[in-house]
Amino acid sequence: MTESYKINLDETDLPQAWYNIQPDLPKPLPPYLHPATRQPLGPKDLSAIFPMALIEQEMTQERWIAIPDEVRNIYRLWRPTPLRRARRLEAALNTPARIYYKDESVSPAGSHKPNTAVAQAYYNKAAGIRRLATETGAGQWGSALALACNFFGLECTVYMVKVSYYQKPYRRSLMQIWGAAVYPSPTELTNAGRQILAKDPETSGSLGIAISEAVEDAATHEDTNYSLGSVLNHVLLHQTVVGLEAKKQLALAGEEPDILIGCVGGGSNFAGFVFPFVPDKLKGKERRFIGVEPTACPTLTRGAYAYDFGDTAGLTPLILMHTLGHSFVPPGIHAGGLRYHGDAPLLSLLVHEKIIEARAYAQNPVFDAARLFARTEGIVPAPETAHAIKAAVDEAGRCRETGEEKCVVFNYSGHGHFDLAAYDAYLEGKLEDMEHSDEVLRQALRELPQIHGR
Amino acid sequence: MTESYKINLDETDLPQAWYNIQPDLPKPLPPYLHPATRQPLGPKDLSAIFPMALIEQEMTQERWIAIPDEVRNIYRLWRPTPLRRARRLEAALNTPARIYYKDESVSPAGSHKPNTAVAQAYYNKAAGIRRLATETGAGQWGSALALACNFFGLECTVYMVKVSYYQKPYRRSLMQIWGAAVYPSPTELTNAGRQILAKDPETSGSLGIAISEAVEDAATHEDTNYSLGSVLNHVLLHQTVVGLEAKKQLALAGEEPDILIGCVGGGSNFAGFVFPFVPDKLKGKERRFIGVEPTACPTLTRGAYAYDFGDTAGLTPLILMHTLGHSFVPPGIHAGGLRYHGDAPLLSLLVHEKIIEARAYAQNPVFDAARLFARTEGIVPAPETAHAIKAAVDEAGRCRETGEEKCVVFNYSGHGHFDLAAYDAYLEGKLEDMEHSDEVLRQALRELPQIHGR
Repeated sequence: MTESYKINLDETDLPQAWYNIQPDLPKPLPPYLHPATRQPLGPKDLSAIFPMALIEQEMTQERWIAIPDEVRNIYRLWRPTPLRRARRLEAALNTPARIYYKDESVSPAGSHKPNTAVAQAYYNKAAGIRRLATETGAGQWGSALALACNFFGLECTVYMVKVSYYQKPYRRSLMQIWGAAVYPSPTELTNAGRQILAKDPETSGSLGIAISEAVEDAATHEDTNYSLGSVLNHVLLHQTVVGLEAKKQLALAGEEPDILIGCVGGGSNFAGFVFPFVPDKLKGKERRFIGVEPTACPTLTRGAYAYDFGDTAGLTPLILMHTLGHSFVPPGIHAGGLRYHGDAPLLSLLVHEKIIEARAYAQNPVFDAARLFARTEGIVPAPETAHAIKAAVDEAGRCRETGEEKCVVFNYSGHGHFDLAAYDAYLEGKLEDMEHSDEVLRQALRELPQIHGR
Repeated sequence: MTESYKINLDETDLPQAWYNIQPDLPKPLPPYLHPATRQPLGPKDLSAIFPMALIEQEMTQERWIAIPDEVRNIYRLWRPTPLRRARRLEAALNTPARIYYKDESVSPAGSHKPNTAVAQAYYNKAAGIRRLATETGAGQWGSALALACNFFGLECTVYMVKVSYYQKPYRRSLMQIWGAAVYPSPTELTNAGRQILAKDPETSGSLGIAISEAVEDAATHEDTNYSLGSVLNHVLLHQTVVGLEAKKQLALAGEEPDILIGCVGGGSNFAGFVFPFVPDKLKGKERRFIGVEPTACPTLTRGAYAYDFGDTAGLTPLILMHTLGHSFVPPGIHAGGLRYHGDAPLLSLLVHEKIIEARAYAQNPVFDAARLFARTEGIVPAPETAHAIKAAVDEAGRCRETGEEKCVVFNYSGHGHFDLAAYDAYLEGKLEDMEHSDEVLRQALRELPQIHGR
């Protein structure tokens, strides 16, 4: 029998604790600032929309945070997820590289998102909260939170970016099957939404706008909290189950990963996958980390590293991150989950410190890689995930030229079963490759808030 | 740590051979008859549309058929599939029963169908065939064959039942991603299709009609063979990998299954799942086998056990099976994969001999069970699969009343990711529960061919 295609772990191998990278950073993470006073934020400032347990996880310097049994018992419905060897893709590329992918698409929601959704629902339920409000882009986060709320008996309200709501109606169905209420954002339900609609009734919406609506909903209802699917430290923390499992699995395969790759929207699937490997690099091991984003929303490759709002309306704290400016509204590309104007502050710091690399690709080459993957490995990736596949294909191609037998590992963050309209558009040659002019990006950055003394 | 949710097998546990139930039947399977002469069919009669290797598998009395390495190496992309314990469903039902399900939804096509598609593509390629033609109902079979043809470098032409083509466009996309040509059936491409359209231009199509078109395509093209996704003996044979794995997994869990359940369209997922357990019952072990079908197409529960054509146009051999008559066109229910007028002859014989039970359910109670399953286990089943879930829920409910701690196992034949429009219709209260009058069924059965001397 030839070598195996999958490296599975037992449920007993499920990590007991999440990995917090904060104590291992080359320099401390600058504080969030209050949107009004511009002063460093304290735990109290976040308590209107988050439970204290998550606020503590947001700020703690503890390296390991125990995963509650209630959370691990939900994880066990689909975790540990398989690490797969892409032998057929390797053969098609005629590369000496060994390509692996961590398959997070096997969760009920079809992506990595439930890893933090389940944790957030648990801590909110434990804090006596009755309802969670959130935003969603492609619908992956919204469906994950709907699933998690269903498991813990919480109500769930989802503000879904309008362009995705209509491009991907089936993710909306999925949220409704799990009992969530879903609205196309911007809505008339919030001040933030009404203001945007007054300015531009035809807006396709954006993650930033939807965040404003969900935050306002939570801040104005006593029994309701807000839940974010990416960007924040505690979200990235929960996603480290992905990298911790992958590390065990690569060890079982006798591999030392040379290149680790993930797509970047807010940064949570990428960070959750690579952060557990970062200490190896800080200790001197050869590791390259590549975050991949769309040229239509090039936050890491062309954004500024500056304080900015997490949302469009300027309701959230100011965060030091890579950003295109909170007023930037990316075009309605099919990788809806990568249409965010900023990036996770932890990821942004590590990119700024040159510990993590970033690169951007246009839609058509990304879908070329996605189709090659579907034709070789069989499974059809989400457009977001296809960005990581494109980078893995390019790196494996370089190995073909140089003859290097590198170990390339990427995070297969989600399947494309609800994105087939995007594949139709691709197969019909209707996808546009979007490259922003410097002027457009400069214009957006002009609206960055001026933070004095920083 | 509480007990596990999944029973996984290693790739090395993948079965080495398929199980052929023919030598273990209580009485031999009556022969297929030639559609024109009505005389028993010989291998030659099938050689125009099938490769000899599959014709031999159709008729052999060998109990075990070795699985070629080329086939096992494709299986290994997703097999062995997990056997899952439905602990959360059990808790929701407050039942003493233990419920397990074999998860065939993890294949790239999202169902059990690739188990035979891969085998059929392999044997046709080995026989020098260049293209395969087939029909598909819900699209699960068509996408499975498109995937398999892609792996072996065969062209693939799919005649897709019109109602499903429009209800489930995303399965069509999936087939196209894997390189297949897909047409809504009936088409103008075949005599069979043109004749139906002349009679009824508005027909929603049926599996029987689509079979006629695919068979005609294959019979009229030298380099093209036909491929069937269910009904025939060799198809059921290939699907026994499902039951053979499940048997190993139940043994690992220390379980003796009391009730095994599957949904029945043509019968292949049900047969592949339960046939490996049938010898246990013949040897006197307590085993109940329940095939579940929709009331809209009640072939096993209300059909005749008689010789009939496999297709609508009367091109295929005559098969002794449970049938509603080859002219029966079932309504366009959402479980498109269960809309076939007949059943596998092997399954029909075992139902006729009372070794296997059958039951029928209407759409709404089936979707009630599907939603309960999605809310407890997380994952969203295909409408076809939901029929099996409904029966498992009912059996577990009986155990709650009697206090019996039965082991109930069903085949989770596919996921519902491409069927969410059906869930929308259900959630909006738009699903009709269809029960045929005796007169309608009598009318359809009047068109059964008269086989003299039988």
